[in-house]
Order: sequence, then C-alpha cells, then structure tokens
Amino acid sequence: MNNNPAIIGASLPRLDARDKVTGRSIYVDDMMLPGMLYGALLRSPLPHARIKRIDVSKARALKGVKDVIVGADTPQIRYGNWRLVPQSQDELPLAVDKVRFLGDEVAAVAALDKETAERACQLIEVEYEELPGLFTVEDATAEGAAIIHDDSPGNVSLNRKITYGDLEAGFKRADYVRDDVFTVHAVSHAYMEPCSSIAAPDEGGRVTLWTSTQVPYIVQCLLAATLGLPENHVRVIKPNVGGGFGGKMELRPWEFCAAFMALRTGRPVKFTLNREQELAFGRRRHAMTIHSKVGFTKDGKITAKDFNVLLDGGAYNSMGPTATFLCGNFGAMLYRYPAYRYLGRHVYTNKPPAGAMRGFGAPQALFAAESQMNMAAAELGIDPIELRIINAMETGDEIPEVATISSCGFKESLVKVREMSGWDAKRKEKSPGRGIGVGCYSFISGGVFNWFNTKYNFATAEVRVFEDGTAHLLTMATDIGQGSDHTLRQILAAELGIGIEKIRLTAADTAVTPKADLGTWGSRVTLMSGNAVIDAARKIKEMLIPVIFSQFDLNQIHDVAFEGDRVFAKARPDKGLTFGECVYKALRGRRGEPLTAFGAYTPRNRGLVSPAFSFGAQVAEVEVDQETGLIKVQKMYTAHDCGVPINKMGVEGQLEGSIHMGLGYALMEDFVMKDGRTLNTNFLDYKIPTAQDMPPGESVEIDTYEPEGPFGAKEAGEGLVSPTAPAIAEAVHHATGYRCMDLPITPPKVLKGIGKLK
Amino acid sequence: MNNNPAIIGASLPRLDARDKVTGRSIYVDDMMLPGMLYGALLRSPLPHARIKRIDVSKARALKGVKDVIVGADTPQIRYGNWRLVPQSQDELPLAVDKVRFLGDEVAAVAALDKETAERACQLIEVEYEELPGLFTVEDATAEGAAIIHDDSPGNVSLNRKITYGDLEAGFKRADYVRDDVFTVHAVSHAYMEPCSSIAAPDEGGRVTLWTSTQVPYIVQCLLAATLGLPENHVRVIKPNVGGGFGGKMELRPWEFCAAFMALRTGRPVKFTLNREQELAFGRRRHAMTIHSKVGFTKDGKITAKDFNVLLDGGAYNSMGPTATFLCGNFGAMLYRYPAYRYLGRHVYTNKPPAGAMRGFGAPQALFAAESQMNMAAAELGIDPIELRIINAMETGDEIPEVATISSCGFKESLVKVREMSGWDAKRKEKSPGRGIGVGCYSFISGGVFNWFNTKYNFATAEVRVFEDGTAHLLTMATDIGQGSDHTLRQILAAELGIGIEKIRLTAADTAVTPKADLGTWGSRVTLMSGNAVIDAARKIKEMLIPVIFSQFDLNQIHDVAFEGDRVFAKARPDKGLTFGECVYKALRGRRGEPLTAFGAYTPRNRGLVSPAFSFGAQVAEVEVDQETGLIKVQKMYTAHDCGVPINKMGVEGQLEGSIHMGLGYALMEDFVMKDGRTLNTNFLDYKIPTAQDMPPGESVEIDTYEPEGPFGAKEAGEGLVSPTAPAIAEAVHHATGYRCMDLPITPPKVLKGIGKLK
Repeated sequence: MNNNPAIIGASLPRLDARDKVTGRSIYVDDMMLPGMLYGALLRSPLPHARIKRIDVSKARALKGVKDVIVGADTPQIRYGNWRLVPQSQDELPLAVDKVRFLGDEVAAVAALDKETAERACQLIEVEYEELPGLFTVEDATAEGAAIIHDDSPGNVSLNRKITYGDLEAGFKRADYVRDDVFTVHAVSHAYMEPCSSIAAPDEGGRVTLWTSTQVPYIVQCLLAATLGLPENHVRVIKPNVGGGFGGKMELRPWEFCAAFMALRTGRPVKFTLNREQELAFGRRRHAMTIHSKVGFTKDGKITAKDFNVLLDGGAYNSMGPTATFLCGNFGAMLYRYPAYRYLGRHVYTNKPPAGAMRGFGAPQALFAAESQMNMAAAELGIDPIELRIINAMETGDEIPEVATISSCGFKESLVKVREMSGWDAKRKEKSPGRGIGVGCYSFISGGVFNWFNTKYNFATAEVRVFEDGTAHLLTMATDIGQGSDHTLRQILAAELGIGIEKIRLTAADTAVTPKADLGTWGSRVTLMSGNAVIDAARKIKEMLIPVIFSQFDLNQIHDVAFEGDRVFAKARPDKGLTFGECVYKALRGRRGEPLTAFGAYTPRNRGLVSPAFSFGAQVAEVEVDQETGLIKVQKMYTAHDCGVPINKMGVEGQLEGSIHMGLGYALMEDFVMKDGRTLNTNFLDYKIPTAQDMPPGESVEIDTYEPEGPFGAKEAGEGLVSPTAPAIAEAVHHATGYRCMDLPITPPKVLKGIGKLK
Repeated sequence: MNNNPAIIGASLPRLDARDKVTGRSIYVDDMMLPGMLYGALLRSPLPHARIKRIDVSKARALKGVKDVIVGADTPQIRYGNWRLVPQSQDELPLAVDKVRFLGDEVAAVAALDKETAERACQLIEVEYEELPGLFTVEDATAEGAAIIHDDSPGNVSLNRKITYGDLEAGFKRADYVRDDVFTVHAVSHAYMEPCSSIAAPDEGGRVTLWTSTQVPYIVQCLLAATLGLPENHVRVIKPNVGGGFGGKMELRPWEFCAAFMALRTGRPVKFTLNREQELAFGRRRHAMTIHSKVGFTKDGKITAKDFNVLLDGGAYNSMGPTATFLCGNFGAMLYRYPAYRYLGRHVYTNKPPAGAMRGFGAPQALFAAESQMNMAAAELGIDPIELRIINAMETGDEIPEVATISSCGFKESLVKVREMSGWDAKRKEKSPGRGIGVGCYSFISGGVFNWFNTKYNFATAEVRVFEDGTAHLLTMATDIGQGSDHTLRQILAAELGIGIEKIRLTAADTAVTPKADLGTWGSRVTLMSGNAVIDAARKIKEMLIPVIFSQFDLNQIHDVAFEGDRVFAKARPDKGLTFGECVYKALRGRRGEPLTAFGAYTPRNRGLVSPAFSFGAQVAEVEVDQETGLIKVQKMYTAHDCGVPINKMGVEGQLEGSIHMGLGYALMEDFVMKDGRTLNTNFLDYKIPTAQDMPPGESVEIDTYEPEGPFGAKEAGEGLVSPTAPAIAEAVHHATGYRCMDLPITPPKVLKGIGKLK
C-alpha cells in the first residue's frame, strides 16, 4: 500500500527535466570516442531485386575509408525479435542475394568522416536484376504474385487466430448485425531523436554498443547472435533516448554494422541516421484492412464478433507477429463478447517494414471497433455512450485463456466523460459543422507472451543502500523519454520511505544492471519493473528491521515503519533511527558486507496477454469548415483508469502526448508513396500536429487500485493513443454526416463525404 | 589449491597488452565530453607565505573564462587519507590564509580552452606576506624555527614508535655494536601518465569523476567530504592508468576543483598536469635521515637494534603517517631481532609533500639496514650472505603484536642467489673496479592497519555467470598498469575452471563495483582482491554443484570438479555438463534469477601489519670506472619468494620494473632544489635509467605456498624495489673500498670516496 502520498500520486518534476529542456542531456550522437570512425549505409534503390554483383574496390580505395562490408562479409545469421519462433526471424543485417524494399541495406562503410563514408557508398557498384514490386496486401496476396521471401509462398508470413464462444449461435441470436470494412494507414513514430549508435571494441574481442534503443537486452542478445559471439561478449548501453514509440525495439542493421566494423578495424564506429532516412526507410505503424462483423440484440447487447485483418507488414516481419496477435486481442477488449473469432494475416509487401508503434495493434483495431460501435448505436437508436455502458467489461471479467481483468474503471470512465463533456446536451444540439463523438480504449500493462524466449525474469532490480542515507537502484529498465527512471525512483523512495533525491539510478546497461529486462514496449515498465523494485526494496527492509528490534529492545508484536528518512517502531515513532544510521548499524553487524538486494518480476498465472489492463473513454468536440473540409478539434475530454497514478505529472504528459499522436493519426499524418518509394521524407511534407494544432483538454483519472501493480498502478502511456481517432471520426460524422471508414480524415475526404467534391 | 596449472603459474600475456603497446588504450586525457571546460591551477610562487589579498576580477572578466575559484569559495573542509586520526588531515584543496610550499594550489580557473584558463591564472592578483622557508628537517626542528602548521609547533607532525624486547640487555649482550647515520633522498614516481581528471555534473546534484588514481574509493569518500555531499553522490571511475607507484593514492586538489567547478558551471571540467608540474609540485618518496645502532654477538647473531628516523615530509602529512610507521617496521624485518626500538618523526618542511612511493618506507629503511649488515659482516669477518643466513627469519616467526610469518623463503633465497651469482668465487676476486654486493628485502602483502577507517570489507568481488559459458567479475580493485585485472581474471578462471577469455571484468567504478576496496598500494591487490574473488567464485560453485548431483543422480560421496569449461563428478568425468549448460540448468531451476555472488576479504587475526610477507635476496655486479667514477651495473641476480606466482610473466615484469626503479634510486635520480624550488623538472634534467642502462639479470622464484594467499600467492610488485640500492652500494664498496652512506651513489661521490676528487 502507498504509505507515502508525498511521493506516490504526487506531481513531481523529473530530475532530468532541466537538462533535457536546456539541451545539456547527452544523446548518442553527442558522444565522440577517440579514434572514432563514421559509418554510412548503401541502400537498395529498388523495391525488389536480385543482387547479381557487388564491387566495392573503388570505395575501398578512397582515401579515408577504413572498412567496407557487404552481406557476404558477414556471418549471415538471420535475426528477429521472435526467437520463440525461429522461422519468423527473417532479417539479415546486410542483404544477401536479394533486396526487398527500397532502402534495404546492401553495404556499409566506415571512414574518417561522414562525408567520405557517404562518398564511398556512391562508389560501390551493385548490379541488380529487378523483380516485380508488390505494394499492396491485395497485390501481394493475389494469385501468382511474385514471392518476396522464398519460405513464404503467397507472401503471408504468418496467421494469428483467437477464438472463443459459439460464433454461429451468437450471430443467430443477434437482432442486428453490421459488417464493415475499415482501412487504416501507416504512420511514422516521428521520434525527435533519429537513430544513432556507436560501437567500440572492448578487451578480448568484446564489443560495447551505445545505442538509442528501447530494448538493450534484446539488442545485446541479437547482436551477439548475428556476430557469432557469446551473449555476454556484447555490452549494450542506452544513454538518453529522444523517443522511441516502438520504433527502436529491435536490432537494427547499423547496430550490427557498427559493431562488426569496430571489431574489424579496432576503432569505434558511429552511425547516425537523418530525418530523411528515418522517414523514407524507418519502421512504421502497420497499415491494415479490417473486416469486422458484429451482432447485437435489439437492446444493444453484443452477441458475437468476427474480426478479419490483413496487415501490410512491408518487407520483413519485424514486430508484425505481435501486432498481428494484439490487433486481434484489442478487437475484443473493452466489451463483453460472448463469442469472438479473429484471424489476422501478416502480409509481406515491398515496402519499408512495419513494426511496433505506440498502441501496438490497438489504434487500428480500436478505430474499427469503436467506429463500428458508434455506427451501431446510431442504427440501434441507443446513445453511443449508453451502448458502451451496456456492454462494458468489469472487474473480474475473464477472456478465456487470455486475460483476467483484476481492475476495471471503464464504466466509471464512460459516466465521467459524459458528465464532464456535457455530452447529453451537446449530442442533442444540431448546429451544422459542430460535432461531438466518443472513442474508448483498453490496453495492456506489459505482455505475458514471452516471444523473445528469455530465460531470465521479465524485469529485475538491484537496490543498494548506504550509511549516508542514500540508495542506488540498478535496473535494465529503459527510459526512452517517458520518464520511467523517475517513476522507478518514486516507487523505491516510497517503499524505503526516503527522499527521491537520495536515489541514484543506473539503468539499461547490459553489463552492469541485473539480468534481464525486456525493455520498453507494451506499457510494461511501471508495472513490471516497478514490481521488481518493490521486491528488492522489501528484501532490503528485511535486513534493516532487525536493527530496530535489537537496538530498541522491541516486543515482537511491533511493526516497523519506513517514512521520512527514518526507520522506527510504527506505534512508537521515537524508537527509531535515521535511515542512514540504520544502514550503518546493519553494515557493522554484517562486518562490512554491503546491503544489496535483487528483486524480480515475472507475471505468473495472469493469462496469455497481460497482468493488468487500463481502460478509458475520450470525447472529442470538433468544428468542420463546410467550405474547406478542414477539421478543427476544439476540445478533448478524457476519463481514464490507470490504477493509482505514480506521478500525476507524468500521466498528464502521457495523455497530452497521446492526444497529439492520436490527432496526427486521425487527421494528417500519412506516407505518400509511389512504386515503393516514400515521397514525403521531411517534416514539411510529412505533417505532424504542431503546438498550434493541439486542442485544450480536460481529464480525470478514475480511482481504481490494480492489485497486480506497484502501489496499485497500471499503464498510462500507450492505450490513450487509440480513442482519439474514432472519437474524432464520430464527431465529424455528428457534425457533417460524413462517416470516415479509411484514415486519415482529410479535408478532401470530408468534402467528398458531404458532396462538395466529386 | 591450484587445480589449473594452465592458468595459475603460467606466463599469460595480458588482454590489454596489445592496446597499450599500440596506443589504443584510452586514458583520462584522451577523453572528451560535450561542453567540456579546461581547468588550470594558480600555484604559490613562494615556499612559505601568508595570503593577504586575492583579486580574481581580471581573470573572471577574460573572454572564455567560465569559473574562477579560490579557497574562500570552497567549503574549506580539511582532508587526508588518515581518517582514523582526524587531526592528521591537514590539507585543503585550495590554500586559505597560507601557502606552505612553492606550488601550493591557490586558485583554479575553468575556461573554454586550456590556454585561456592558464592566461586567466596569470591575471589573478595575489598579495603575499613572505614567511621564512624551512627546507631541511634540521632547520625545521631547530629551536625557534617558524611554524608551518599552527597545530604542530616544532614542525613534527607525528611520532611513530615500535618497541619490543629488552633493548638495554640486548646491547649489553652484544660483542660488537655499530652506530651509523644514513641519509636517503627524495625521488619521483616518474609514472608515464601525468595526472588527469574530468568531473561531470550528474543528475540531482551528483558528480562523476574520471581520474587517474590508485584509490577510487578513497577519492570518492574524501571528495564527497570536501564537497559537503553524501558519499554516494560522488562517483569515481578509474579508466586506464599509466602508472602510479604510490603517487596517485590520495585526493588531489584538481580532483576537487574539477568536481566543484563542474557542479558550479553545470559542465564537465578537465584538468591534466604536464611533466614539469608533476616533477616540480608532485609527491615524492620521503627523504630521511636514519640513525641506526645495531649489536651482534661475535658469531654474528643480532642482539638488539635502535632505529631513529627523521622523515622530511614536506608541507603536508600526505601518506607520511604510514611511511613513518612502515619505515620502522621494515627496519626490523628480515632478521630475528630479540630487541628493537624504533622512533620515527615526521617533519614538516616548506617543500612539495612527500607521499607514498613503491616500497612505502622500505627502500629507505632497507638501504640503511642492509648497508649496515654489509658493514657489520666485514668487521665481523663473516661473509655477508652467511651473516644474513645466521639471522634470517623463518616460517612461523612472530614479531610481537605486529606480524606472524606464515610463509618465508628467505634462507632459500639467500642460498639460491649465492649459488646463481657465483658469489663465493667472485667475492674472493679482487680485481680493481669490479665488485659484487648483496641486498635483501621483505615486504607486506597489503596492510591490516585500517587508517582510512572504512566500514566495508577491505576487498570485495562480485561474480556473475551466464549460460553462454562466460562470467563477469566486478571489483573495485584498481589496475594502475601493474596488471592486477589480469591476475584477478586468472584467479577467477582457475577457480571456476573456465578459460580466461571467458571473463569480462568491470573494475574500479565506485557506483557500480561492490563496496569497497581500499585501492592499489602496499602490494595488496593480488592477495586481498584475489581472496575476495575466490570467495565469490566458491559461492557460485555452491549454486552449480547441486545441478550435477541432481542431473546425474550422484551418490553424495562424490565431489564435483570445475575444469576445462566443464562441471563434472571428479571421479566420473563423463557425468558432467559444460559450464554454460550447468549455469543454464541452474538458472532454469531458479526460475530466471541470475547467478550472482558477492565475495569479500578482510584480514582478521593477522597482526597489525600484513597478512603475508614476501622475502628475497639480490646480488649486484658492478664495474666502476676509476677515472670517471661512473658505475656500470653489469648483472643483477635475484632470488625471491612471492609464494605461488599467479602469472610468471607478470612477476617478471614487476622484477624488471623494480630493478629499473632501484637502479635510478641508487645511482642517478635526485631532485635538485634551491630555496624550495625544484630545478630539474623534465626528463632531460631529472634522469631515470633508460633501456640502455638496464643490466641483464637472472632470477629465480623460491617455491613456497602462502596459506593466506589466493592459490598460495603473495606480493611481488613492491618489495623488490628495495634490495637494489644496498646491493649496488655494497658492490661499489667491494670494487672500490668506497662506502656510500648517502644516496644516490654519483660519480663525484665515488671519486671523492676513492680520493680522486677533493
């Protein structure tokens, strides 16, 4: 329980905030090592081709060039995050024989400066035999289509299914059935910090990699595998990261190339991507075609749902297997589905691979599912919020073999958002061009599925305490800008009852921090790493409690409190020591052996998906210009259940960021592509919302307590990205009568939708 | 016991050797941090003065200057390594009120580049009131001398005494008594890497210091104290160090200034000294005046010794208290002294402070003691080696309350060196200008005396093992070039039975490696940190042994062996797993909890001085040019007892380095000083032996086993620096009849000694 309200649930500014804002924080590209070389990549200019010949002799001869490598020089070991399913591991750091998208990495150069490295890339001669390019899931799955990966004829790399209940009976029981097709598009993570990595050779053939990553442990394991080294010969260190959003959760070709060339040359090698490369070749959110059929009784009860999804995976699996599964999972969260059938098919195309992105299958699934709820409500004559309340999940609900909902504030969120937005009145108003709409979400707090097949606990922590009253928290948990370092400090401070400023933190260094942690994705850090921190802290307390009993001759019925930098008998606060004194006494008693404890967390008996689920509802108010079709979001109302928020300020930041990202997804972000080439590769052409576009907002956290979470907390950083698009689509429909079935909702679509454009 | 002769006692090249030799190793001065400032120090131009006024306004106004500090800006907290005796802590990072030697630090500047920082120093106006300078111990202890430190009237900062046996009776019993005065001079450590430190501000008011040091933990504690921060808010990291020899075992003013200004400016600050500064202002070996009276029976048995020493400490205590004690200790090692009295007085003078230096009081004490043995032998008509054998210590000997000798190969060393050098024949020869002489030594393997008053174990280690068959050793032990990292890897490899290349090592980072380790001095690392490594490794083995028993259904009478990267039943080698498989099984059994163990070593019940002592004897052959007085050392023979050598190649390196340093001490190194100013501040004027000067040598390790040492090892790196000077002095006497009583033995002294110069 939270015994420290000054820390848990408070709004505490992050320790790194000042340095971040003033530009003092060091990111990978700010780092220089003595003798460092600069790397550049040669990429395929064709979306699909066979490599006939590569000649690097001119590049190698260029003055200042220290190394040139092509696929044939490397160990050619395939990798991918799904180690549990080795056949899903379909990437090579540098292409061998074939390129599969425009941008596929073909060669790498390390030189004394970046310009030379890039010039050398241009001197590499590659002879290609072009193959037909497949740019849509329809083309890729068509009869007789070219084959992108030899072991995936038909270009479907994998299917994921979820089934429960009697689907046929459900639809038979339904008074009303809808059957819709939605399409959603690919968007960019648009993190502020382009990818950057430096590898340096280390004693005895080892290598150290500083890299902008969400998953140091995964990068360590996969990099070691691709280099043919023992896992622990590779050290991965994550410095400050300027955002990831799912886009930095895999081993990347330049990480391999930096390490491989560092070992070959004996010198550090740095690669830094620029914005153009990020947008043209980087990972994206999956575009999908979603076929959803849902049945209702006439009083609005859902009877069954059939959910069929084609995912446009691009050239490689990347995180596609997980997105494919989670899309199906999120297709049936939120509401009670007596029967559900999901089939997701992950399709290869000759485009930059889609990967994980904030929401991880949920924004797509929920755009379809929530839009369909809104459409059904209209036809059933039930208020959309009311229809949701009728079907809403509750605490204790189970999805067979998948999840148990141990806390759920969804109904409360719906009630609250209706009230705070003035929904009932505004929904009745019919002023042209003005509309209000609702969208909801649920999300996981980390995944139970162990696709990486780690042998270690999912999250770990080491806590050391010192006689100066300070503590040191070591964890492989990975702050990528979301502030999890601060959250973990808060959790430790609350558990030990010491000031947060007393806690030193060392994170995300695979050689130093305890093994292991699966990284930052799926909103797993607060719950999983937080639980590991509490586990370690409790073991430390077990070392300190005896000091108080022995020092103050306490009757064994006493309990000991840790509060205000003191350790004392709960019922007799005068009988106690400062935290530092208590550590000192314990240290003396241990004859100089330091006080150190390891903690861990792995979800057990928590279903297949996640140990805990967040819920929430969002209402968007929009104004649509009837002449230009321009949509202005005027206000966003959010009520959400993240359990007990650890840091209110952090939760608010996540909410604002989610709305920002949801807004871009709904209204403006989109890749413009031609024959496999991305045309809008800068922030003038690829439009993300600016501060000017951000609507004002009101939000409320619903008061729940998640028993599986640290101090009752669960996720707050990712689920909220999903409700914005369906809420806006519904508001636009309310304002104009136009129903968007294909994101994004652009002015031309609106104008066409209201008949002002043909 | 050593179950791995391929590792323990082998000659294994160090993992870092290639990088060191090819210039790839990174030292502090090779490091750059973004936004880094460069520091410079303003030093006192006078040897003794009161500071009347400091005006830094012109310095502060110089373009590019970011910070200027003087003593008054700092917390003014005194420091020194002898925390056990707080009144001995007599230094401030920057002088307040008074300067006490020419070079005393008065102010510091941080600027955008080094030139600006140095220019700014020149713009600082300091008004001094000069005080009388005291440059000899005689002047400093004279009646009415000026007082250097107010709380030390008479300028004797401390006395150290050692007494045992009945001195008066001893001398009464003597048939023959000698009473001699020897003087020894100050010399420089002359480490290849001048001191360099970078401090960077860290989150939450913390600070990280990369520094060329022998004692990261001591620097952490003292830096925190002088900054007024909790100990663990300071992180000290030791990168590669290019030698220390005792000269880098304290907090230094530039370490404080770098950290203090980094915290003030929010930017990293670097200080690097140059050779001139090192030689002019750096620590030195103590010059001493040694009064030694020793009695013998007519058959050569020592009856008593009275040893009185004045140490020239320079302006501050530095490591003087330890050197003062150890000088007395070494004055009575080697031989059986029935009665001994020692009085050492540490005297302040207005010169750069003397500190610890390789041998730590032994080179001085043993030059006197061993010279006196040689002189006595001549007068007693006993061969010098024979006289030593008559009196030599043996295994099991005790010095009351000081030491128990648990292994001693001294007599064997004497017998061996006599034989290998052809002593008996050469000693009888009387060819003018050719001579042969002997000198001996004993040394500690780390100190038991806890002058730093640490609450932690003296040495610690953390060992982590992984399913890829590798291990990670974390220790605060400090390799300063002597190769201790490699030695500790060997010890771990031997104990776990895995290849040395499997071991990653992280050392000497106070925030990461386990608390604590007292650093590198007094030849403590192999024995103390080695024992800690074995302790941790044995705990790891306890986690692995059950796997083998359970996997192979072994009868409990079996024992398990760790050899050749395998773990198996000793009597049934087929019943076993590879080391990695065994770790994997254990890891699975622990449900993902990593295999990590902490080990520690603190000597207990081992007397006041050291847990183990090395011994040895050395013979020098010289040729003296009768016209020029030039001494050419033709050959050195060494027989020494370092217990079981862990790495023969490392021991040989230590021996060669010791001879090199002993040669410089004996023949050429010397500070030329005038009125407190050092005149020879470069390697042209301050002469250390070159490769050309190095004599060929032969050496033998005496076969002993030290029960307190890891695999039977004890010290090999420091004791050997002592016998060279007395051996050469005796050889010169044998060659010329000239007896040197005052080091170094220069050609003019020889010519004077043989009557060729007046």
